[in-house]
This record gives sequence, C-alpha cells and structure tokens, in this order.
Amino acid sequence: MAKEPKKLDDLFHDTLKDIYYAEKKILTSLPKMAKAAQNADLKASFEKHEGETAEQVSRLEQVFELIEEKAQGKKCAAIEGILDEGKEIMEDYKGSSALDAGLLAAAQAVEHYEITRYGTLATWADELGLTEAGELLKTTLGEEEATDKALSELAEAVVNQEAQAGT
Amino acid sequence: MAKEPKKLDDLFHDTLKDIYYAEKKILTSLPKMAKAAQNADLKASFEKHEGETAEQVSRLEQVFELIEEKAQGKKCAAIEGILDEGKEIMEDYKGSSALDAGLLAAAQAVEHYEITRYGTLATWADELGLTEAGELLKTTLGEEEATDKALSELAEAVVNQEAQAGT
Repeated sequence: MAKEPKKLDDLFHDTLKDIYYAEKKILTSLPKMAKAAQNADLKASFEKHEGETAEQVSRLEQVFELIEEKAQGKKCAAIEGILDEGKEIMEDYKGSSALDAGLLAAAQAVEHYEITRYGTLATWADELGLTEAGELLKTTLGEEEATDKALSELAEAVVNQEAQAGT
Repeated sequence: MAKEPKKLDDLFHDTLKDIYYAEKKILTSLPKMAKAAQNADLKASFEKHEGETAEQVSRLEQVFELIEEKAQGKKCAAIEGILDEGKEIMEDYKGSSALDAGLLAAAQAVEHYEITRYGTLATWADELGLTEAGELLKTTLGEEEATDKALSELAEAVVNQEAQAGT
C-alpha cells in the first residue's frame, strides 16, 4: 500500500482524521466559550452544543469502525487557527459589551469549518459506496447547519443590540 | 479611544482587517491551485474565482474608506491554517487521481471561511447603521455562496468519479 498512489479512500481517511482532531479540540473549547459568554441564551447554546459535539465524536468513531481503521486524529491547522482567533477575541474583548458578538462570530467560523468538512466527507462516502458512513456524516452535517442557523438568529436578535448599546 | 472598552465598531474594524488579510492570501493561492488542478472545469473555476477575489479585495477597500480607516490587513491564523492544509494536499496527492477532489475540498473550506466572515460583517454593518458597507459585504457574500455551490456541483459531477476510477 505504501508505494501505491493515494486515492479517494485515502483522502476520505485523512480528512476523517482531520475532523476527528478538530471535534476533540472543539469539545475542550466549548466550556471556555460558555464560561465567557455574558448572554444567558448564548451560554445555554454553547452548553447544548457541547453535548451534541460529544455525540458527533462518537459518530466519527463509528465511521472509523465502518472503514476498519483505528479512530485517531491528525493535527488540523485550520481548526487551530480558527480557535486561536476565538481565544484572541476572548482576551481582547474581555469585559466589553461586544464580547458576545465576537464569541458568536468565532463559534460560527467553527460551524462553517465543520459544515464544509462534513459536506465533503458525506459526498465522498457516497462516491465510495459507504452508505452507512454517509448517513452518519449527514446526520452531523444537519446538526451543524442547524447550530449555525440558531447562532445567526441569536446574533441578530440579542447580542448585537447589547454590543451596540455599550457597557 | 485607547482606554475606552472596545465596542462593536472596533470588532467590525478588527474583523474587516482579518478578512482583508485573508482575501489577499487567497489571491496568491488561487493561481497555484489552478496550476495544480487536473480537471479543466476545476482549473477554469479557480481562474474565474481569482478575478472575483480581486474585485472582493477592492470592495473591502471601499468599506475601509466608508468607515474612514486605512485599508490594512491583520494576520489571520484561520486562513493560514486552512491554506496550509490545502498546500499539504497538493503535496501529498501530487500525481494522484484524488488530487482534484482534495483541491475542491480545500477550496470549499476557504469559501466557508469567507461565507462566515462576510455573513457576520454584513450583520454588524446593519447593526451599526453602515448601510452602504452592508450592501458591499452582501454582494461579496452572494458571490462566495455561489462559488461554494458551483464547487459542490463540480465535486459531485466530475472530480470524485475521476478519483474513484484511479490513475
């Protein structure tokens, strides 16, 4: 296998490791974001998403099983960068009325990274005939899209008004 | 200003610098991705998006003008990470039948980063009463969403079949 050119199944496996690493990183970041959030609805939304993320990690482990590979992550530079920007906002806007708006933006950047990865993986699963894996990936994709939509509504309805009002 | 707590207008300005840096980085990456692409439609799509990206940079410069700030970028760790992953795919899958599928995934990760940032900035522009800036940001947002959709269709129709067929 080592000398054969990499194919779509390798790309699927590599990308699965990437999002597995990313989800585990996100799982450690969500409690920090919930703690930092000022708005009660936003705090609740981060807490709810923590539970969902734990389930998404377990769904990924099922996909690894389905392709008969060990569940393991591979350092994902993209999520590191996205989460670093979130951390920067938590530091720069600590005590600011705009903190929640910044946290929402950071959380949506995370969601969009997940949406693009799960969308890609689900397409590849179908191409590779991995029907059951495809279903698991699509379930998570649907959850991430719903979370992103909920965050958008929260951003419009509550947090930006807070930010605009000032402290 | 230095001692006052940061507010939504500061967050808007900081995020504008972030996406300005990102767009300029993307502008230097697209020709490399076009060169690497094997599929003619994918190559053409990257070339087309290069032209669009140049216009998007100029739209951002208009937004800086509207808020009476100098157009300047601020290192964006997220786009660095996303583009590094794209570079890794170009290296790891060079000569592979799955290269185009990997390039498409990398390009869609870039699009989703832009979609989330422009979506956030457009919402904030409205909250801040920056109507003209909001319109410019929404124009770009629409373009990014259309590009992402086109890439999804390309991924389903052409490139994954190539990848599956093998070299």
